[in-house]
Amino acid sequence: MQLIEVNSLVGEDLIKVEETIRSVSKVGYPWLAEMLGHTIAGGGKRVRPALCLLCGKLYEYDFKRLVLMATSVELLHTATLVHDDAIDKSPVRRGRSTVNQLWGEEKAVLLGDYLFAKAGEFSASTENIRVVKLFAQTLEIISKGELNQAFNAFNLKQNHEDYIQRIADKTASLFVLSTESGAVLSHAPEKSVQALKEYGYNLGVAFQIVDDILDFTSTEKELGKPIGSDLAQGTFTLPAMLLVEHYPGDNPVKRLFESRGERKENIGRAIETVRNSTIVEECYKFATAFSVKARSQLDSLPDCPARQALNELAEYVVSRQS
Amino acid sequence: MQLIEVNSLVGEDLIKVEETIRSVSKVGYPWLAEMLGHTIAGGGKRVRPALCLLCGKLYEYDFKRLVLMATSVELLHTATLVHDDAIDKSPVRRGRSTVNQLWGEEKAVLLGDYLFAKAGEFSASTENIRVVKLFAQTLEIISKGELNQAFNAFNLKQNHEDYIQRIADKTASLFVLSTESGAVLSHAPEKSVQALKEYGYNLGVAFQIVDDILDFTSTEKELGKPIGSDLAQGTFTLPAMLLVEHYPGDNPVKRLFESRGERKENIGRAIETVRNSTIVEECYKFATAFSVKARSQLDSLPDCPARQALNELAEYVVSRQS
Repeated sequence: MQLIEVNSLVGEDLIKVEETIRSVSKVGYPWLAEMLGHTIAGGGKRVRPALCLLCGKLYEYDFKRLVLMATSVELLHTATLVHDDAIDKSPVRRGRSTVNQLWGEEKAVLLGDYLFAKAGEFSASTENIRVVKLFAQTLEIISKGELNQAFNAFNLKQNHEDYIQRIADKTASLFVLSTESGAVLSHAPEKSVQALKEYGYNLGVAFQIVDDILDFTSTEKELGKPIGSDLAQGTFTLPAMLLVEHYPGDNPVKRLFESRGERKENIGRAIETVRNSTIVEECYKFATAFSVKARSQLDSLPDCPARQALNELAEYVVSRQS
Repeated sequence: MQLIEVNSLVGEDLIKVEETIRSVSKVGYPWLAEMLGHTIAGGGKRVRPALCLLCGKLYEYDFKRLVLMATSVELLHTATLVHDDAIDKSPVRRGRSTVNQLWGEEKAVLLGDYLFAKAGEFSASTENIRVVKLFAQTLEIISKGELNQAFNAFNLKQNHEDYIQRIADKTASLFVLSTESGAVLSHAPEKSVQALKEYGYNLGVAFQIVDDILDFTSTEKELGKPIGSDLAQGTFTLPAMLLVEHYPGDNPVKRLFESRGERKENIGRAIETVRNSTIVEECYKFATAFSVKARSQLDSLPDCPARQALNELAEYVVSRQS
């Protein structure tokens, strides 16, 4: 799916965001410049900055401030990925070696801290205290979500509600920061800010459900990292939950989580079972429901190209292949 | 040394800071409450919150805002300690098991992130954008200092200047945040803000030099962690530098950093050599020079009990035994 509306509206401004992100790696210490350059050049879909800019486009678009905030949300995202990879000891992300793989986990933790700081600085440079508070609260929620995931690794006693709460915390919260800050910085009426928060929440949950599906259905080449990573980490995602529900007797997820049988074989069988069942379709139904809910929030907003672009993004997150 | 002036001026307000810090552990998830409770109950000298409050006392003391900021600097300090211990795989701090020892390094990294966020929230709750910017910049400087230390572990080619830069970044920056934010939040004239920044910088450097001395001269009981930890991590501190300068031929620090000989024996010999030489005295001279420089900054400030207390603190940091 091509993001035609999104690109025509904020494509050029996203180039400015990209430039601003890259400026972060211009530092005195060569070892730091190298680490930052590697991390930042990793790219990514830049969905969060696009969201921030588009929400601004709905109202009084303050280009300078929105670029700063769009940079902030992307750097915050990058920082969390650096820590995630260090914690999970993941060797590859987006088809490239991770920071922990190249420089060790210790330096990856510190680089993540550095990026949190830079993200916070960009946030503060908007001079808007409400946005800064949102930024800090978002980091709190993300960390809580990640801790929740760590504490519940290999725990089969988690239901759909636990799952949604967890992905809302670790993923949707950053989408909410992107939309809410974009709206706040553009002086959107409070009712619209709330609608865009809701939109961001539902979009973020849909996005993460699709992420969790792709971990079963995609390929290493498309994902840029090995498939089945969630299972390997003991993260009980929706496809795995539905597998356990559909096969309440013995099943590969249960065996994996209870450390029975050969680990790789269990992961392989779980992936195979999910792929050859209705589970993928069911998961997409869940994701689509959240995407639809996100889109329904747009009705109350000004009818303009930015609204259409937000609609397009909500369609995109449930159709993307990587 | 008793901190008589400090306690009489901000002793009660520090209790409020303590309460505010403890309120952070009141969260819904029991596993998070337990981790936070353990981390926060660890105590510490609360030098940084005291600094923040005292700088406020020099001008228009805004109790509510200063308590928020004093809490912020202490939580930021705590967060960096949690990450330091995780990175160094340290089992003990202040006589108690570290977060990484009890819950593993992965969760320690995430808890540190959570504490950075809480510190940021307290900072933002002062509603002062300058202070928030300082906060984010400080985290950047600290992370850079820690990365610098990690990249230069076991590197003998570092001089005094490199050392001072490193400890200024990783330690003094937080002292500067404490004094500068206290001054800014109390509407101090810009000239006084600059004097208090300088005071904080010099005090912080003195503080860290003494920390580095105590790693050689103290006992495990007094320090709350094994002595010689810096050497074990390959951190080239002032006492180790002076040892290499005084014994330019073969010496235990060189042997340790070049992985020659038995590790523990090298550390033991280095400690013994430092203790039985003039190195300790020389290091204290360095620290005292910074402490004196810190105190000299106070001359331009209003002559009041808070100024005397800041003077007392500058004497304390070079006389403390733990």
